[in-house]
Amino acid sequence: MSRPALPELSLLMVDDAVKAALLEDFGRAGDITSQATIPTDAKATGVIAARQAGVLAGIDLALSAFRQVDPSLDVSVLAQDGDKLEPGTIVARIYGPARSLLTAERVALNFLSHLSGVASATNAFQRKITHTNATVVCTRKTTPGLRSFEKYAVRCGGGMNHRFGLDDAILIKDNHIAVAGGVIPAIKSARAFAGHLVRIEVEVDTLEQLKDALTAKPDVVMLDNMGPELLKQAVKINKGQAVLEASGNVTLSTIQAIAEAGVDIISTGWITHSAPVLDLGLDIEIG
Amino acid sequence: MSRPALPELSLLMVDDAVKAALLEDFGRAGDITSQATIPTDAKATGVIAARQAGVLAGIDLALSAFRQVDPSLDVSVLAQDGDKLEPGTIVARIYGPARSLLTAERVALNFLSHLSGVASATNAFQRKITHTNATVVCTRKTTPGLRSFEKYAVRCGGGMNHRFGLDDAILIKDNHIAVAGGVIPAIKSARAFAGHLVRIEVEVDTLEQLKDALTAKPDVVMLDNMGPELLKQAVKINKGQAVLEASGNVTLSTIQAIAEAGVDIISTGWITHSAPVLDLGLDIEIG
Amino acid sequence: MSRPALPELSLLMVDDAVKAALLEDFGRAGDITSQATIPTDAKATGVIAARQAGVLAGIDLALSAFRQVDPSLDVSVLAQDGDKLEPGTIVARIYGPARSLLTAERVALNFLSHLSGVASATNAFQRKITHTNATVVCTRKTTPGLRSFEKYAVRCGGGMNHRFGLDDAILIKDNHIAVAGGVIPAIKSARAFAGHLVRIEVEVDTLEQLKDALTAKPDVVMLDNMGPELLKQAVKINKGQAVLEASGNVTLSTIQAIAEAGVDIISTGWITHSAPVLDLGLDIEIG
Amino acid sequence: MSRPALPELSLLMVDDAVKAALLEDFGRAGDITSQATIPTDAKATGVIAARQAGVLAGIDLALSAFRQVDPSLDVSVLAQDGDKLEPGTIVARIYGPARSLLTAERVALNFLSHLSGVASATNAFQRKITHTNATVVCTRKTTPGLRSFEKYAVRCGGGMNHRFGLDDAILIKDNHIAVAGGVIPAIKSARAFAGHLVRIEVEVDTLEQLKDALTAKPDVVMLDNMGPELLKQAVKINKGQAVLEASGNVTLSTIQAIAEAGVDIISTGWITHSAPVLDLGLDIEIG
Amino acid sequence: MSRPALPELSLLMVDDAVKAALLEDFGRAGDITSQATIPTDAKATGVIAARQAGVLAGIDLALSAFRQVDPSLDVSVLAQDGDKLEPGTIVARIYGPARSLLTAERVALNFLSHLSGVASATNAFQRKITHTNATVVCTRKTTPGLRSFEKYAVRCGGGMNHRFGLDDAILIKDNHIAVAGGVIPAIKSARAFAGHLVRIEVEVDTLEQLKDALTAKPDVVMLDNMGPELLKQAVKINKGQAVLEASGNVTLSTIQAIAEAGVDIISTGWITHSAPVLDLGLDIEIG
Amino acid sequence: MSRPALPELSLLMVDDAVKAALLEDFGRAGDITSQATIPTDAKATGVIAARQAGVLAGIDLALSAFRQVDPSLDVSVLAQDGDKLEPGTIVARIYGPARSLLTAERVALNFLSHLSGVASATNAFQRKITHTNATVVCTRKTTPGLRSFEKYAVRCGGGMNHRFGLDDAILIKDNHIAVAGGVIPAIKSARAFAGHLVRIEVEVDTLEQLKDALTAKPDVVMLDNMGPELLKQAVKINKGQAVLEASGNVTLSTIQAIAEAGVDIISTGWITHSAPVLDLGLDIEIG
Repeated sequence: MSRPALPELSLLMVDDAVKAALLEDFGRAGDITSQATIPTDAKATGVIAARQAGVLAGIDLALSAFRQVDPSLDVSVLAQDGDKLEPGTIVARIYGPARSLLTAERVALNFLSHLSGVASATNAFQRKITHTNATVVCTRKTTPGLRSFEKYAVRCGGGMNHRFGLDDAILIKDNHIAVAGGVIPAIKSARAFAGHLVRIEVEVDTLEQLKDALTAKPDVVMLDNMGPELLKQAVKINKGQAVLEASGNVTLSTIQAIAEAGVDIISTGWITHSAPVLDLGLDIEIG
Repeated sequence: MSRPALPELSLLMVDDAVKAALLEDFGRAGDITSQATIPTDAKATGVIAARQAGVLAGIDLALSAFRQVDPSLDVSVLAQDGDKLEPGTIVARIYGPARSLLTAERVALNFLSHLSGVASATNAFQRKITHTNATVVCTRKTTPGLRSFEKYAVRCGGGMNHRFGLDDAILIKDNHIAVAGGVIPAIKSARAFAGHLVRIEVEVDTLEQLKDALTAKPDVVMLDNMGPELLKQAVKINKGQAVLEASGNVTLSTIQAIAEAGVDIISTGWITHSAPVLDLGLDIEIG
Repeated sequence: MSRPALPELSLLMVDDAVKAALLEDFGRAGDITSQATIPTDAKATGVIAARQAGVLAGIDLALSAFRQVDPSLDVSVLAQDGDKLEPGTIVARIYGPARSLLTAERVALNFLSHLSGVASATNAFQRKITHTNATVVCTRKTTPGLRSFEKYAVRCGGGMNHRFGLDDAILIKDNHIAVAGGVIPAIKSARAFAGHLVRIEVEVDTLEQLKDALTAKPDVVMLDNMGPELLKQAVKINKGQAVLEASGNVTLSTIQAIAEAGVDIISTGWITHSAPVLDLGLDIEIG
Repeated sequence: MSRPALPELSLLMVDDAVKAALLEDFGRAGDITSQATIPTDAKATGVIAARQAGVLAGIDLALSAFRQVDPSLDVSVLAQDGDKLEPGTIVARIYGPARSLLTAERVALNFLSHLSGVASATNAFQRKITHTNATVVCTRKTTPGLRSFEKYAVRCGGGMNHRFGLDDAILIKDNHIAVAGGVIPAIKSARAFAGHLVRIEVEVDTLEQLKDALTAKPDVVMLDNMGPELLKQAVKINKGQAVLEASGNVTLSTIQAIAEAGVDIISTGWITHSAPVLDLGLDIEIG
Repeated sequence: MSRPALPELSLLMVDDAVKAALLEDFGRAGDITSQATIPTDAKATGVIAARQAGVLAGIDLALSAFRQVDPSLDVSVLAQDGDKLEPGTIVARIYGPARSLLTAERVALNFLSHLSGVASATNAFQRKITHTNATVVCTRKTTPGLRSFEKYAVRCGGGMNHRFGLDDAILIKDNHIAVAGGVIPAIKSARAFAGHLVRIEVEVDTLEQLKDALTAKPDVVMLDNMGPELLKQAVKINKGQAVLEASGNVTLSTIQAIAEAGVDIISTGWITHSAPVLDLGLDIEIG
Repeated sequence: MSRPALPELSLLMVDDAVKAALLEDFGRAGDITSQATIPTDAKATGVIAARQAGVLAGIDLALSAFRQVDPSLDVSVLAQDGDKLEPGTIVARIYGPARSLLTAERVALNFLSHLSGVASATNAFQRKITHTNATVVCTRKTTPGLRSFEKYAVRCGGGMNHRFGLDDAILIKDNHIAVAGGVIPAIKSARAFAGHLVRIEVEVDTLEQLKDALTAKPDVVMLDNMGPELLKQAVKINKGQAVLEASGNVTLSTIQAIAEAGVDIISTGWITHSAPVLDLGLDIEIG
């Protein structure tokens, strides 16, 4: 398999999110345009296709929109999450009542184009660093309500995930360190508190702080806003003791040098909070 | 007042959305980092400030995050939605338990930076056309679950709103026209169906179609993907009969010419689905 | 088709409302009478029939109750929403486990008889004015939680809908006018605020106020509590500029004269908030 | 005290129901009329008063609407649930932001007028039979979603409640009897099944069936569709063994004779499913 | 049939509870272990079997977990709720995607082993008293959120149910008596308040109080913390007037003597709040 | 501080869980006993006290019940979660309306006694092994819907937590190993899949499997169902490479020997799924 197995999205989560979006779009009266102009017995075929190059993510959410609006719609899926798309690549074909197709269209595309946008952005970063051992990861800077789906899209694009929330790992930042009285006591407090399946990461701003931190044996050290030269020194100091994560000022222009400095992980909020949508459209052929 | 009164967001809607986002971030165990490293009696002051220029939107959502995490937090608001921000502009100060501040921080900023990003993008478009009578409006291409808030942010940025959903106006597109047997019968069907408080908009692709459409007296005509020259001709043909909306290929480079062609409304999905976040940060001073 | 196409109710909305009603009826222990007295393998046929003349509305909600209680129930639908019913008209036949039929019966009938009551009341009003151009519309005086369904039932009965909520049109009433400093500034404020797909209605109490209002070009004028003679004068003053809506003291006795005065729309809360149920019953034949 | 202590409604249930109704009315954009025409700092006083005679029910729901829209509104309550109202009786005064008052008005009145309508209808029936030992009770023929509140309103009007749902008592009807093989085996099955805190009622259509039923010692017997003469005979046959409930064809014209026949309970769905609203209005004085 | 027909659990209630439990277990990322190690096309057979003797309860909840995770799983049910299980008794076989089986396993077993634990504990008590007329009943001391299911499990184990909540019967305890001014006025207040389908139970601590209480004709008297000798005297005093319920200090050692004293009902919270789980396991055979 | 800082429960989660439990208890009519017998103006003091020795957990949930039923109740808290209780230790005093106290009592105690039962059971295990380096941890065998709270109670009792769900760590069991083709490829697959903040645990049944597993460098190894002698050998083989967790046949009799074998973690489902409640009562003094 040319790409790693993708995590499967739970249909329970998918259907709940899509239902909420459909109800948001329906309001109290539903699709009054289709009610007014489309006979109930009109049939149509809809073809979802890419209008620009990118990586697909969220096909299950799009399908859920059609299925929830009308279970009689007949769907053929032609591309999978994680697939590379070119302009014109057909993603799915849906046949059935024209009203149902038109009613579900926007919600289906809103999810699909947003998540494919995240996957495509991730992939653009990741492609810059395939010759290194580094991996792009997302952060908790996600769109409220969509964290599970955006984190999934990052994986579709070839990236990996940082914490899913406040509760699944410990990430000690400057403020925590200030209160705890230094990086070493902060890590020790965290170790005493954390369960045996909880990893501990600590953020450092300087190489001195890195050296201190390493004495307390964190699982991961985040090197905040260090340029490639400092990162290289950090890698040397670390000697493989902790996983090293570079953070701050990560762009398509800077990521290659960051990765080549030898860090393991490069984290950026941009791929989830600012990725533009991938342009995907639904062409409908009536009859 | 230098800007129009903003629509007020219902606190019921704000609190529900923020609560869902907090629970998404808390997971099952909450903020284990703060639990591990911050004493329950440590106090801190947090200062939310802009790190780049833009327009503020969503302050009520940010405040709701702090209030729901800990009602004892004391908040001073120093900027209002719709205000222009410069790098360093302080938006709010929050004082109280350090744990609570740190726990609420990310959700508060995720809403604030996303919605301020929408407002700022809108404002960038709107500033290009202030010398014309045209207004920028958003579409239904919004982030699932956030439509009310993103539409509000568009207004904070100086834009206006297109339909909020499928049910609050009729928008007849090419597919509806195809099934209904032409633009004129489509508008007539819609008029017969629609209540007396429902406006009808029709999408046209050519000037011929525009002429046809006008005979059926739609409230609004959407001119799809027409360049400035065609738009000017459309304005002449229309003679003020219908509100004219330009749609398609709207960018910061093209919008001025589109507006100067004389249309009333310019719609774009970009300001809601692809606007990058506005960089806002929370600096915390312990003690 | 002898009646206009009905708006279709979203199954998502139908199923949610019916599920809530079923759970309200089940409480914590469910249908203990059927559990106590009906063997699990007993089969029955239920026949839903009208016991008085009227108009049907809500069949999808009734069916949803049976389907959600027991997907194995086999349903034949013999009448559609909007159909005229006579005493004895059979609406649907349901066959399957007797327990399931009896458990779902009351919720199914509660929805069906309430909504058919609304449709029948609407139809009674509408039949008085078919020789005119006026249409009966409902208001926001609906039963909490049932607005979408009651508005739909009004359409089944041949009426049309006023606003679905506070957000889909602007309706300026006396209090708004008082604060805004008069009917003209109120309409102007509204026009400046409203998006291009939002209609504006203004309520007037006198012919003088009507004349003022028309200078500001509202889409609709509500003539509040005017008798037929005043309404006729209002129609003359209006000269087709605004849609005219008569409101107040609308009864089966008064509506004909109101309609004959030449108004376009006659609104009444009675058809949603005070319509008695239409008597529909479920006769069950065991075995 | 001139009336029995009313059951208190749980604020948890009240607030949930009112919040759902507010959100139904707000839609996605909220009260755009007030946003457009009422300055945020305008203050007003609203006075809720009866416009016809009746009995009040639901004041807590009305207050919840104002409180949830704006906690800063200041409320004085002048009448209690169960109070007799005359045209003009003032129920409550609310002072605060004019926008908030206008935004909450309709939801507050929709609950108050509906529930007061139920209470008033109940009271009209109950007043006909105060010289007897009979009591009016409601049934499960309630408006979906409002059962707890309508049952409460019945008590405000001086009536009592039948079952709240399928699970809090056993009510054996003709269909259950048919399957169970007769009224006696049906009651015996029910007795064997029911917990020690569950009462058993059985419906009978004839005096013969009543005699049979009594041998199995039901707690309550429902005498279905019997006229006053048959009811008198039933009372004699019963000799005080079971509570006797008359059901069917209960109207303001028939109830007195039914009660004078000596039954204990008279049940009717009309008071919950078909009671017209009680006219209550909110007069607003700006400033 | 050797045991009474069990009440059927509503699938609506079952599916809601199981869905909530699945989402609680999935968190934001789902079953990452199976995603990491099990190919999507691997198939497996799971066999649910008892690992100790007891009584089964909750099979519908276990099945719901598998069905909601993956509708393609094929299930054969081999034991019914209420069945006696021995170590090794097979309850169900499930075949299908290995990932789905492993993902649903824990939630299915958590429900099944908890509810079977309740049924088994109930059955252990009930078996001690089968030679008497007494029945074991549970109380409102249930696990929050699981009351309907635990009450059902008690019935599966051969017991009966006390009140399902605060609202389906009146239970007057010492505190109510103290405020009401004695046991007789308390019962009279309750009788005046209660609907005709609501039973009234009163708690007494002494035989004197029992005598007083009986003069007010309660439906049930709870004899609180009386030993067998006092209970025998209570039975004599009662002479069959009220149902008698013994409560307090009910254990496997004491219950026989309590039952033999002649009471009708023996209530204990232990069977719902402290019953250990019944050990049930899922053995999975891959391929 | 004699015990580690406890994780704080989010009030959002606490209030939601308690509200659901209150509504479960209220049903549709609420506390009809108190309504019938307690005047609305009667005041009372309630004292929550332990009736047996143990460890307190869940005080916030108990308080939430009183606060949600009636915000006017005045509460003094006298013991904190994690405190040791003796028979008679007073936990809290609540003063206010007697009805409110009685209405909230059962839900408050159901949470408090259940969670204190979990904490007390955990503490009993933990006390047996304080002289070792081992820690007791709970599993995913929790009561559906209460996982966050039960895991918190385990910490109150001095234990630590295993995974909170399927998504916050990887736990490779025998079935995963079988499909993955052995323990080494399973761990490698997991490592390739897992993010950098996700720990990996693998279950082994034999010392040979342990040796294999260690070559793949898992973070944690679960030694399943090994007696103290085997555990000691495992500790020697491990040489501190992985965290070692003993699982299976953990009881109050066996835990000391298991801990003394030198493992780090001892996991048991019993403390969450089978711990009996801690007896806590509410004594109410009227007036």
